[in-house]
Amino acid sequence: MDCVQWQTMGSIGPARYPGTRTWGTMVALSIHLDRKADTPLYQQIADAVRQQIRLGRLVAGVKLPATRTIAKDLGVHRKTVVQAFDLLGDEGWLVAGVGQGTFVRSDRPGLPSELRRGTELEREDGDDGHVQSLAVGTGFSWDALLRARPEPSPVWRFLSRNRPDPEWIRFTGATADPSHFPAEDFRECVNEVFREQGANALDYGTPEGIAPLREFVAERLVPNGVVVDPDQIMIVNGSQQGLDLVARLLISPGDEVLVEEPGYSNGFRLFQALGARTIGVPLDPGGIRLDALARTLRETQPRLLYLMPNYQNPTGLSLDADRIEPLLELCRRHRVPVIEDQFDGDLVYRGAPRRPIKASDREDQVVLLGSFSKILFPGLRLGWLVLPRPLSPAMRELRQVADFSSGLFVQHAMLRFCRQGRLERHVEQVRRIYGARLEAMLAAMAREFPPGVSWTEPEGGLTVWVTLPDGADSLELLQQARGEGVDFSPGFLFFPNGGGGQHFRLSYVRETEERIERGIGILGELLRAHCARMPELSSSRPFF
Amino acid sequence: MDCVQWQTMGSIGPARYPGTRTWGTMVALSIHLDRKADTPLYQQIADAVRQQIRLGRLVAGVKLPATRTIAKDLGVHRKTVVQAFDLLGDEGWLVAGVGQGTFVRSDRPGLPSELRRGTELEREDGDDGHVQSLAVGTGFSWDALLRARPEPSPVWRFLSRNRPDPEWIRFTGATADPSHFPAEDFRECVNEVFREQGANALDYGTPEGIAPLREFVAERLVPNGVVVDPDQIMIVNGSQQGLDLVARLLISPGDEVLVEEPGYSNGFRLFQALGARTIGVPLDPGGIRLDALARTLRETQPRLLYLMPNYQNPTGLSLDADRIEPLLELCRRHRVPVIEDQFDGDLVYRGAPRRPIKASDREDQVVLLGSFSKILFPGLRLGWLVLPRPLSPAMRELRQVADFSSGLFVQHAMLRFCRQGRLERHVEQVRRIYGARLEAMLAAMAREFPPGVSWTEPEGGLTVWVTLPDGADSLELLQQARGEGVDFSPGFLFFPNGGGGQHFRLSYVRETEERIERGIGILGELLRAHCARMPELSSSRPFF
Repeated sequence: MDCVQWQTMGSIGPARYPGTRTWGTMVALSIHLDRKADTPLYQQIADAVRQQIRLGRLVAGVKLPATRTIAKDLGVHRKTVVQAFDLLGDEGWLVAGVGQGTFVRSDRPGLPSELRRGTELEREDGDDGHVQSLAVGTGFSWDALLRARPEPSPVWRFLSRNRPDPEWIRFTGATADPSHFPAEDFRECVNEVFREQGANALDYGTPEGIAPLREFVAERLVPNGVVVDPDQIMIVNGSQQGLDLVARLLISPGDEVLVEEPGYSNGFRLFQALGARTIGVPLDPGGIRLDALARTLRETQPRLLYLMPNYQNPTGLSLDADRIEPLLELCRRHRVPVIEDQFDGDLVYRGAPRRPIKASDREDQVVLLGSFSKILFPGLRLGWLVLPRPLSPAMRELRQVADFSSGLFVQHAMLRFCRQGRLERHVEQVRRIYGARLEAMLAAMAREFPPGVSWTEPEGGLTVWVTLPDGADSLELLQQARGEGVDFSPGFLFFPNGGGGQHFRLSYVRETEERIERGIGILGELLRAHCARMPELSSSRPFF
Repeated sequence: MDCVQWQTMGSIGPARYPGTRTWGTMVALSIHLDRKADTPLYQQIADAVRQQIRLGRLVAGVKLPATRTIAKDLGVHRKTVVQAFDLLGDEGWLVAGVGQGTFVRSDRPGLPSELRRGTELEREDGDDGHVQSLAVGTGFSWDALLRARPEPSPVWRFLSRNRPDPEWIRFTGATADPSHFPAEDFRECVNEVFREQGANALDYGTPEGIAPLREFVAERLVPNGVVVDPDQIMIVNGSQQGLDLVARLLISPGDEVLVEEPGYSNGFRLFQALGARTIGVPLDPGGIRLDALARTLRETQPRLLYLMPNYQNPTGLSLDADRIEPLLELCRRHRVPVIEDQFDGDLVYRGAPRRPIKASDREDQVVLLGSFSKILFPGLRLGWLVLPRPLSPAMRELRQVADFSSGLFVQHAMLRFCRQGRLERHVEQVRRIYGARLEAMLAAMAREFPPGVSWTEPEGGLTVWVTLPDGADSLELLQQARGEGVDFSPGFLFFPNGGGGQHFRLSYVRETEERIERGIGILGELLRAHCARMPELSSSRPFF
């Protein structure tokens, strides 16, 4: 047997607190062997035990199973287990009590001396060799208590069944390329914050965020036609938190919410986690279809419309300028607020930057979400919300009980980065880099992809959207592509209520031009074979 | 008139987007004069206009009101306004069009050239001189759309009516003293992160947080008797976010939730914001009263019990060790999960550290919340959750849609800080400092406070809880105290459903011993006068 596990109630005595009883605490030991590995078996056993002591799964004083038991259960020679225990004894992890067995040492640093010797471990084999719960067989059921049951992300379910290889050419992940993060620039800003503000930058902040950063955001929106007071801006932990906070103010379980289809999966997963029903409104190359939107608004009672009008994820498409006013008018008539996700308005490579529809919002009916994560550092978790004034008081209250505020320290560092012109320099740089990658991808697709396959030609953003002929299946293609070392995001991830098998998304920002061309070449070859098997190509099919 | 405001629809033309219409955008100018200030009036006018241009309230191209109009409305000499406009012209903010008036310049950096000249501003006096909404008189009503209506925090309402003076001796705010933050130590850790991990530390993280920090938290819990797998730990943005996430999994609108009374106000405000009804369970000097808890559990259907068993905020009290097991048994029998807020388990000055009740949790019925904010840097927003295993999958999903993850960068910096032993050194230091402050406060209270006033003698934490004789009113006392330059937190803030007027909370961690003694001396004097007016002292009254 390659995997064995023992469990027991080890007793941990609170000797320092006389008068209290000694409560048991479940402890467990599990050992997995990989007989094909280069590491010797005794080393694998020692590694497993050491790891579990270090992680606190095996607390000091616990008695280990006899070497004979372990050897028998694992199907190894007893000498192998003795060798492992000897090694751990030499390292100071285990200690032998004469005639008593082997114990986890209680005098190693970091553990209080009152931890008592445990009882002997009883063997219990786990199905997959993992302890499912340290509290086995108790009557307390969390499952029955869960009010909210967020569905596992389809991305997560998919990826957990199909782990990507780091060597693959990865067209997945609509996130910036960390190899171009201006980390050294940011380090300088961080040190300036320490020098000039010291400990004060590490204290509590306010729910709305620091005023000068809100002022910066407000100023930077002006050239986009969005003129708002800094008081209307709240700094949040990335635009996802912004969306969460707005949705919590506007949605109750059972509500209907309109989303783009295809659209941003973590948007509709959030609405679903809040108990809402997501209703997809289809796109065409000019963005969300107004006829479909009008019909859906008539037929449903949505609480909000969530929209990524420019450089949309996943399609890269932008809303036609002449749809903006009718869209706002439609939503106003139905009293449906618009949540506009600006996503990556800075990542524009072709044509003039598109204005947010917030710029046309005379009635204060649009909440605008933005982020520093796509253009700068997602690891700082900084974004912002532009709030219609009537929402501000409730939002401030909600934020205070949700998590108080964004970190003061990163806000100050980001403010310096932005105010010193480093943001604009960085925007220029990544626009150039990503723009070249987009052109490389589009040129390679035109060269390599067979007739019947169509794709978007985005002006900005991070992704291109590909549509296969009728009957083709992007999951099947993905399986073949992974076999050839190319990864992409299958279309079903971006459809809130199923479908999307005919599409896939390609991200071009995290790979070099050379690798992009190679990857598209491989995909092209697979697509040609794939399409050759199709009964007929339906090039007349609408885009979505 | 000292305050005037004009509004208009300035037109901002999207000339770059042919075929689109020109949408109006509301712009506003408001000027407040302080005739008692040292700053000359022309300077005040210039400052106001410049500020509003800079913040984007006055966009480029907008025509300003005539100097004559401004002068008349403000009640100043016209020359004063001309002087202000001249200054702004010299600075490049304003430009005069011959025979047309004065405009905000459209060629200053950062503004696109297509911003058009605006129409003339129409005067509109605001009640308080502030623009209430830039979209006046529209039909879109957010108020009607709000599903969640978090109540303004009583703290906030109270403080916004009564702003504290920075010179006061402040016994408010249960947060660490920033003057003892180890900022330089932390700066070193931050620079190490940049040096060794560079841009990778600025990329996206995972919902549960980085593994080595979760391992550190797990190891550090072992001496407290809490033995959990690092997989059960999630890094969150402060324990308030941890509480929010757990509550979102367990509470639906209309649910009942049990809280301590008095208790942590941002706890019950959160539950109320989620639509729950908070039911207070009273304390006595041994912590939450088991008889009251048992009765409440029988009479209600609570979804959870939220508890700060050790060094509680606001009382500083700890749960008697012999109440732990019966409490867990009671909750288990009623299938009510326990959310334990560890708050500041490191801040212990008297006696041995109390163990979390999670250490006695054999049935995995307790969620444990902890934070680095009280002992270290609240401005990093880092805390952690210990989750029962059945909660982990749903929590991971919820976190992903709520805000993805905590910032990778601050997690790495905190990890270094902790692993290099800097955390333990800092804990030692602040324990000494805060312990001395607690002793100074308790000694001064014993000396200065009159008979009939009682208070807790905490072993740790940040606060002392004071109870006045029957009929006394801590809000009245607060008003007097503020008159004498001393601030504290009135008791009503800590009662979920009203009451608490007889109590107040004193925080001792943000003031020096000398100032603590002075402040308690002032309070003692007021209390003696206050109590002398009471008909009789009820020293026989129970503690709470």
